[in-house]
Amino acid sequence: MLRFPLVTRYSDYDTKGHVNNAVYLTYFEWARVQAWMSHVVRMSGLTGPDVADPPLIVAEARVKYVSPANIGVPLEIEIAVKEIRTKGFSFGYRILDARDDRLIAEGETVQVAYDYAAGRTMALPPAMRKALEAM
Amino acid sequence: MLRFPLVTRYSDYDTKGHVNNAVYLTYFEWARVQAWMSHVVRMSGLTGPDVADPPLIVAEARVKYVSPANIGVPLEIEIAVKEIRTKGFSFGYRILDARDDRLIAEGETVQVAYDYAAGRTMALPPAMRKALEAM
Amino acid sequence: MLRFPLVTRYSDYDTKGHVNNAVYLTYFEWARVQAWMSHVVRMSGLTGPDVADPPLIVAEARVKYVSPANIGVPLEIEIAVKEIRTKGFSFGYRILDARDDRLIAEGETVQVAYDYAAGRTMALPPAMRKALEAM
Amino acid sequence: MLRFPLVTRYSDYDTKGHVNNAVYLTYFEWARVQAWMSHVVRMSGLTGPDVADPPLIVAEARVKYVSPANIGVPLEIEIAVKEIRTKGFSFGYRILDARDDRLIAEGETVQVAYDYAAGRTMALPPAMRKALEAM
Repeated sequence: MLRFPLVTRYSDYDTKGHVNNAVYLTYFEWARVQAWMSHVVRMSGLTGPDVADPPLIVAEARVKYVSPANIGVPLEIEIAVKEIRTKGFSFGYRILDARDDRLIAEGETVQVAYDYAAGRTMALPPAMRKALEAM
Repeated sequence: MLRFPLVTRYSDYDTKGHVNNAVYLTYFEWARVQAWMSHVVRMSGLTGPDVADPPLIVAEARVKYVSPANIGVPLEIEIAVKEIRTKGFSFGYRILDARDDRLIAEGETVQVAYDYAAGRTMALPPAMRKALEAM
Repeated sequence: MLRFPLVTRYSDYDTKGHVNNAVYLTYFEWARVQAWMSHVVRMSGLTGPDVADPPLIVAEARVKYVSPANIGVPLEIEIAVKEIRTKGFSFGYRILDARDDRLIAEGETVQVAYDYAAGRTMALPPAMRKALEAM
Repeated sequence: MLRFPLVTRYSDYDTKGHVNNAVYLTYFEWARVQAWMSHVVRMSGLTGPDVADPPLIVAEARVKYVSPANIGVPLEIEIAVKEIRTKGFSFGYRILDARDDRLIAEGETVQVAYDYAAGRTMALPPAMRKALEAM
C-alpha cells in the first residue's frame, strides 16, 4: 500500500465547495501514475517506452462517495493492489482527510495488460506482476 | 430513456487521442443535468431553488470502458432510470458512437435524496418519483 | 464572424457559481475547433491529416473578464479573425449572455503556422489564408 | 518572488503529449492560491472568511506560450507581484523546466479588490498591500 498527499486545485471544487464527483477519478489516475513511477517501474526494472507509456488499459472504475471534501481540507490518497489475475489487476483507493483519516471516498479500477502493437490483451509481464505483488 | 448528442472538447482527449477515463463521469453528469432540466423539472412541477439545485447527492458511480473514443468520433449518450428506491434511485448510461451505435462505455450512478437544511437523507419527494417513473 | 451556442458543464463552475477563469480558454479552443471544422476546412479544401490536426500552434492567449457567468445563464460565443500575417493570424472572441447579448468576457489568441515535420514555423498556406479572409 | 514545484496530472496533456493551453491558467491560479496561503495571509494577519475567500476578482489574464511542456518534464512555477495600484494589482508568472530553467510559458493576471457585500470594487486593504509589497 502506498499513500500520497493530494494536491488539489481550486477548479476541482464545485458550486457547493465540494470536490466534484468526476475529479475523484482524476485523483485515482494521479495515484496510479505516482505508484507506477515510484514503485512499479523501479521494482520491475522496466525500461524504454513502457516506462512513460505503460502497456495497460483501464477497463472499469468505481467510486463510492462517503463524505464531501470541503475546500480547505487537506487530502491524502491510498492506493493498494486488490487482486492480480493472468491478464490484469485491480487497484483499490481510499481518499482521506489528512488530519483525522476520515474516509471521504473509496474506489477501485481494473487494469488490463494490452499489447498496443498487436491490438489485443496479453498476459501481465512477469516483472510487472512481481512489482505489483510487492506493492 | 433519453438520448442526447455529446459535445466534446479537445481537452477531453488524452495523449493517445482517446477520451480520458475521468471525463466519462463528467459526461454522465452532463446527461443528468440535461435529463433533470428537460424532463424531471418539467414533469414534476418543481419550482424554486430545487430546480437549479436538486436535493440530491451522488453516492456511487461506476464506469465500464468498452472501446476507446477516438478524437473525431461523434458521440451520443443515453440515460435511463434503472431503479427507484424509497430514498434514492440509480441512472444507467451508455455512450455510443453516433454513426453506428457501437458501445464505447456504460455506467451507473446512484443518487440519494438529501435534505441540505436538516443535513440528512430523506424520502424521495413524490413529484420527483413520478417524473423519474415516466422517464 | 461566426457565433455558436456554448455547451457548459456543471464542473465549469466554481465555488461562487461562476465559470472558472481558466475555462474561458477552453471555450475559446472549442470555438476555434468549431470554426476550423465548419468553415476553414470546408472553404480551404484541406484534406488529409491537416484536417484533424491543423498545422498551427497557439502562441498567445488573452482574456478580459467583464462580468461573471452565473450557473444557469445560457452562453454564446463569437469568433472572428482579427489580423492575418505572413506566418500566423489572430482570433478575437466574445462570450455573451444569449438572452440579451450582455458581454461576459472577451479575448484573443494568436496562432502560428507550424511545420511539425521540419520543427519550425512556416508561411500560412494560401488556401488557409483565403478561408480565414472569408470568415 | 515565490517559486513552487508544479504537480501535473495526466489529464493536463493533450493529444500531442503537451500541456493543454488552457491548463496554464489553472497553474497560474494554483500558484496564486499557494502565494495567498503561504505568504499574503500569513504576512497580512488576515483572518475570518477573507482567508479562504479573498475579496478579489480576476479581471484579466494573459499567457505567452514559449515552448511546449512535454509529458514527463518536471515543471516549476514562479509568481511575482508586477504592479500595485489603488484598487488592484498584477501578478506575473513564469513556468519553467525544473531541470534547466528553460522557459515554457509566461503570463500575467490582474486582480481587483472587490467588496462582495456591496457589489463593487474597493481600495486594496492596507494589510494586503503591505504583504504584496513584501512578496
